[in-house]
Amino acid sequence: MRLLIVNPNISESLSQLMEDTARRAAAPGTEITMLTAPFGVEYIETRFEAIIGAYAAATMVAEHAAGHDAVVIAAFGDPGLAGIREILDVPVIGVTEAALASACLLGSRFSIVAISRRITAWYRESVEQNGLIGRLASIRSLDRPLGDVASVQTDNAARLKELCMDAIEHDGADVIIPAGAPLSGLARTIAADVPVPLVDSVSSAVRHAESLVAMKTGAARAGSFARPPTKPVKGLPEPLMRLMRGA
Amino acid sequence: MRLLIVNPNISESLSQLMEDTARRAAAPGTEITMLTAPFGVEYIETRFEAIIGAYAAATMVAEHAAGHDAVVIAAFGDPGLAGIREILDVPVIGVTEAALASACLLGSRFSIVAISRRITAWYRESVEQNGLIGRLASIRSLDRPLGDVASVQTDNAARLKELCMDAIEHDGADVIIPAGAPLSGLARTIAADVPVPLVDSVSSAVRHAESLVAMKTGAARAGSFARPPTKPVKGLPEPLMRLMRGA
Amino acid sequence: MRLLIVNPNISESLSQLMEDTARRAAAPGTEITMLTAPFGVEYIETRFEAIIGAYAAATMVAEHAAGHDAVVIAAFGDPGLAGIREILDVPVIGVTEAALASACLLGSRFSIVAISRRITAWYRESVEQNGLIGRLASIRSLDRPLGDVASVQTDNAARLKELCMDAIEHDGADVIIPAGAPLSGLARTIAADVPVPLVDSVSSAVRHAESLVAMKTGAARAGSFARPPTKPVKGLPEPLMRLMRGA
Amino acid sequence: MRLLIVNPNISESLSQLMEDTARRAAAPGTEITMLTAPFGVEYIETRFEAIIGAYAAATMVAEHAAGHDAVVIAAFGDPGLAGIREILDVPVIGVTEAALASACLLGSRFSIVAISRRITAWYRESVEQNGLIGRLASIRSLDRPLGDVASVQTDNAARLKELCMDAIEHDGADVIIPAGAPLSGLARTIAADVPVPLVDSVSSAVRHAESLVAMKTGAARAGSFARPPTKPVKGLPEPLMRLMRGA
Amino acid sequence: MRLLIVNPNISESLSQLMEDTARRAAAPGTEITMLTAPFGVEYIETRFEAIIGAYAAATMVAEHAAGHDAVVIAAFGDPGLAGIREILDVPVIGVTEAALASACLLGSRFSIVAISRRITAWYRESVEQNGLIGRLASIRSLDRPLGDVASVQTDNAARLKELCMDAIEHDGADVIIPAGAPLSGLARTIAADVPVPLVDSVSSAVRHAESLVAMKTGAARAGSFARPPTKPVKGLPEPLMRLMRGA
Amino acid sequence: MRLLIVNPNISESLSQLMEDTARRAAAPGTEITMLTAPFGVEYIETRFEAIIGAYAAATMVAEHAAGHDAVVIAAFGDPGLAGIREILDVPVIGVTEAALASACLLGSRFSIVAISRRITAWYRESVEQNGLIGRLASIRSLDRPLGDVASVQTDNAARLKELCMDAIEHDGADVIIPAGAPLSGLARTIAADVPVPLVDSVSSAVRHAESLVAMKTGAARAGSFARPPTKPVKGLPEPLMRLMRGA
Repeated sequence: MRLLIVNPNISESLSQLMEDTARRAAAPGTEITMLTAPFGVEYIETRFEAIIGAYAAATMVAEHAAGHDAVVIAAFGDPGLAGIREILDVPVIGVTEAALASACLLGSRFSIVAISRRITAWYRESVEQNGLIGRLASIRSLDRPLGDVASVQTDNAARLKELCMDAIEHDGADVIIPAGAPLSGLARTIAADVPVPLVDSVSSAVRHAESLVAMKTGAARAGSFARPPTKPVKGLPEPLMRLMRGA
Repeated sequence: MRLLIVNPNISESLSQLMEDTARRAAAPGTEITMLTAPFGVEYIETRFEAIIGAYAAATMVAEHAAGHDAVVIAAFGDPGLAGIREILDVPVIGVTEAALASACLLGSRFSIVAISRRITAWYRESVEQNGLIGRLASIRSLDRPLGDVASVQTDNAARLKELCMDAIEHDGADVIIPAGAPLSGLARTIAADVPVPLVDSVSSAVRHAESLVAMKTGAARAGSFARPPTKPVKGLPEPLMRLMRGA
Repeated sequence: MRLLIVNPNISESLSQLMEDTARRAAAPGTEITMLTAPFGVEYIETRFEAIIGAYAAATMVAEHAAGHDAVVIAAFGDPGLAGIREILDVPVIGVTEAALASACLLGSRFSIVAISRRITAWYRESVEQNGLIGRLASIRSLDRPLGDVASVQTDNAARLKELCMDAIEHDGADVIIPAGAPLSGLARTIAADVPVPLVDSVSSAVRHAESLVAMKTGAARAGSFARPPTKPVKGLPEPLMRLMRGA
Repeated sequence: MRLLIVNPNISESLSQLMEDTARRAAAPGTEITMLTAPFGVEYIETRFEAIIGAYAAATMVAEHAAGHDAVVIAAFGDPGLAGIREILDVPVIGVTEAALASACLLGSRFSIVAISRRITAWYRESVEQNGLIGRLASIRSLDRPLGDVASVQTDNAARLKELCMDAIEHDGADVIIPAGAPLSGLARTIAADVPVPLVDSVSSAVRHAESLVAMKTGAARAGSFARPPTKPVKGLPEPLMRLMRGA
Repeated sequence: MRLLIVNPNISESLSQLMEDTARRAAAPGTEITMLTAPFGVEYIETRFEAIIGAYAAATMVAEHAAGHDAVVIAAFGDPGLAGIREILDVPVIGVTEAALASACLLGSRFSIVAISRRITAWYRESVEQNGLIGRLASIRSLDRPLGDVASVQTDNAARLKELCMDAIEHDGADVIIPAGAPLSGLARTIAADVPVPLVDSVSSAVRHAESLVAMKTGAARAGSFARPPTKPVKGLPEPLMRLMRGA
Repeated sequence: MRLLIVNPNISESLSQLMEDTARRAAAPGTEITMLTAPFGVEYIETRFEAIIGAYAAATMVAEHAAGHDAVVIAAFGDPGLAGIREILDVPVIGVTEAALASACLLGSRFSIVAISRRITAWYRESVEQNGLIGRLASIRSLDRPLGDVASVQTDNAARLKELCMDAIEHDGADVIIPAGAPLSGLARTIAADVPVPLVDSVSSAVRHAESLVAMKTGAARAGSFARPPTKPVKGLPEPLMRLMRGA
């Protein structure tokens, strides 16, 4: 099974962090291709940055999806996910929706732990767009300026555990989702200290992708996720034009 | 990985059907134990029958869960699921919630195809209890008396495909979930004829169980899914008493 | 009018407390039969315990409902309620839904005051399953280990009043529901000290049961609360088998 | 127990119909005072007519509530209900909320059967304002010009039963509420022909009023249903001014 | 364009305040008629007072709407709005719904700042009735006795800014709505000190009214906002009777 | 007042149609700059096409927004709206949200009339993301292949009126929104034949933009719509990089 993971951010160090996490989670036989956005921002935290990340993800899959059995969009908030799901014939999974799906199988209500206050509004909207706001116990976040995004989880280890404990004790969380590329793999390192299940979003997305491929759920040839109709297009990068022409 | 699947119905033929489906879906290395309820009804369609099924499932896991890495409750509607999740230290998955989680990764809105009109009210409540009513496009069902539950899917093959097509064309379904033990495996046999992704609930539960075990998400030692406090108990079967005493 | 009240807990002292409350609330001419679960736990606080309580309630009504005009399920959270409503031809009322119905007639938003933190998750789900989460102002609870469940309300009198006042002042509660068998009758004793209406759940259930019987609302012979279809059954206690056969 | 029932419509024949229904439903010992609006419209079907009905109800209770133990607002849609609940120290019940509360105790989802298409929008909003839209299966209505409002139920007997059957068979109704003063008492006359429980709204309101009085739930002295603060007032009928001054 | 603004309160000083705000907001060419309720309360804070305000608004438009192109109901909570919209052939706007509509165009979630704690329950219900509770971040309010309602905003200038800042920092507000006639015009005076967009409800209503008139959106001749059917009426003020007869 | 309208589609004829509509709606003194996407698809109907449209809109505002007082995103579904609102200091309005805001001021529930079945799923999600699904009566659409998008409204005049009438009679619509650039201006031409208010989305957006500018609601300097923090960026068109650096 060949899995393409696209990081809609330009940060190579985040790609490395996520790739490590993905490889650890993958079943034997899963071959992973990891791509970093050739253009965009270091780390998406806002709706504007997500516009760029979505477009970057679209161009990446246009150029590289061929030959893969599934695609993972690897930025919390899932920029471009629904659109890319329409245009490809293989399963496309976002790390947010993946984490939410896993969390729902582990308890009734989940909390999200995030790396900045700014990002929480966008995360909340992501949960709403997944139709799961009724199961969101809370979103808690670090609230100080971050140094290097790639070392957020080690720089703030104690505070991140405190946020988890607060979510459990004060907000009624049954499950915790550490959110965002910079927290990839954190679930594993703090598992012993946090007394509820933790869901790593990249790991979860890899596993869901493998499962959907194994189940041969099939592509949408009708309904709202069928390929968009072919129509006049102009001014787009060649791979995108080719993808949209269904060629 | 050792997986216990409990059928809260007494029908051995349904257990056989589900076990076949489960084995086909399982990853290499997954060992499956399939159990049929020692008491209860042939096939749960109503809330009253689900009370009995939930209790049967509880007694089965009390006696047999030891030594397994995960448990699947194998009746649509997930009788006893949330309670059993509290009392065990391993992941517990219901086939309904499993199918819903997978469906959410394949499209925006899903429809359920069921085997009897009577059962649809209970299914609708199951979707509500999962907090996903906003993503339910419709529930459509067969409406004639069933003969043998074990042959429902072959006896009604054409009608079942029509129900899928109606859900896609009239209700806006992006994904279809054939629901209930008697339809286990149907997703595979009709995939070529239904132009949207189909989710088999037993297969989906097996895969989710494997994934949660692989991710080592951890047991709840706090929050509302921690083990219930020990307290005076009487008159229960010995295995249940032992389980509740945490022994 | 003959009313059967079943306590799905095994605690005789809680049955006594609830029976006293019920008798005080009942109209002249109402004859009450009070039953305590022959098996199960002392006091249901979790989803797992509710599985057992639901089954215990089912077996109790199977054996004893005959000759009664209505049934009350007397444990907050209403274990087994919807199922038992299907199988009987007389009104079946849960103390939670009864309290919620009364509270809705006394104000816009209500708070629940509970005896332990653990129980609040289950209570919240009960409100959700009643479709009334939009009217829930808050759930507040005692948070220290309880001694004897039968004396919770006297042991914690001052704290319970404080919880009520907090709900009114900070959460916007128009009405307070002291929840759970151990708080039966509390509404009456603290009424003078709490400046909003209080609803006693057992009293409320008794009154609703009397009203539904008086109104001759009729049994469901169609729809999702009609009696389940007769089907193969095995291994159940004789009274349950008889009830399910409609005999 | 002395119960004041105010009809916010000017129709004496509807008052007569409702009074008959109320007396039949009332417990022994309940003394009923029935009032008809001294001004307003024959029969409220729209939001504008409800403004007038609400004000008429307010003036009626200002003049006549003294000496009563509870008040019923007897027009579907409950014009003025929440406001009147604030200003009086006794329970105030609307026939709509009463019927909804009873219906919720008889099944999961209810349908409303109404006398005109025009009225259905207002009824839908009433259900929404009660926070129960999630339990509404459907609203079905007569769709031809009515003759005499007082004979609607006999003039349309067959059609009304058909609407009930359609709600059960096509919309998933577990319970039916015939809505509006002109259908008072219909539940009783068609009970034998409709195979699910029927709720008569006036009867239900009378019974709930009796129950709340019996339970001594207490008046709101705090929260949003406490009496409004005294403030400058002008130009109102003397009884209303007196009521608002708390005199 | 001729615009009628009706203040359902009797306070002339509030009318003056709102009229000043309205004139400042109005486009050139808009002629404003400002009316103060001839009867009612000084300042509506509760549901009961809103019954009277709604009726007062209805009588005012009955007497004075002729010759105007649009009507604004100028009390937060919009008493009588939906009903008056039915009976008139010109656009009718409430200041609450106007502010909510504008706020939704400026951010995802808004907070309301109110002048008394008592009023917040009614405001919350107004947001719910507009179907926008999902976008309400919070309602915060002054909590001390007010002196003169006409000078609330100057008497409490510092505290009002603090409430805005709290809503932004703690509740996630993207936009602030200072609510109620006494806070008319406040948005302008504190704009420099509050770092998110502020919406003045009277200004907003005036602008929306002008826009709807300019767009010639047309009157409802069908649907639930068509004029109510003519029917027997009695005891109402002559202008109201005339309006209801469509004369 | 200078207003920039960006068409995220590449179709010049749709831009012309929308510009005509916008000029007709604009107040005297509003200067309109109309831009057509330099790259993308002829007409956005799907989520994938919206990714491209959102990015095109972002690049257009980056290059051209300077010197304008407000921006309108002129494609139903509002691609890129929330992100662009973050990055600019002037009001940014989407035609969908504009139409929804106006519709909410004209009735309780609205229907959308669309040009293709495929587009309806995306429209439904747009209404959900605006938090207004509770007020959506229905979405109805043409269902035949379109010829020239610029002449859709004349080619299908009769059918479009029928869809409006169906929405009113069968779905309970109080207001109709003809949706999508190809239906710009339709509201005006069919107003006489459709008996409920119609909202033209482009006209509505122009009017709202003028109103927000006139009210000086202010830019977000805090909250989730403040400008995103400056951070490393690469590979983007120069105007976009400049905008993101806040230069």
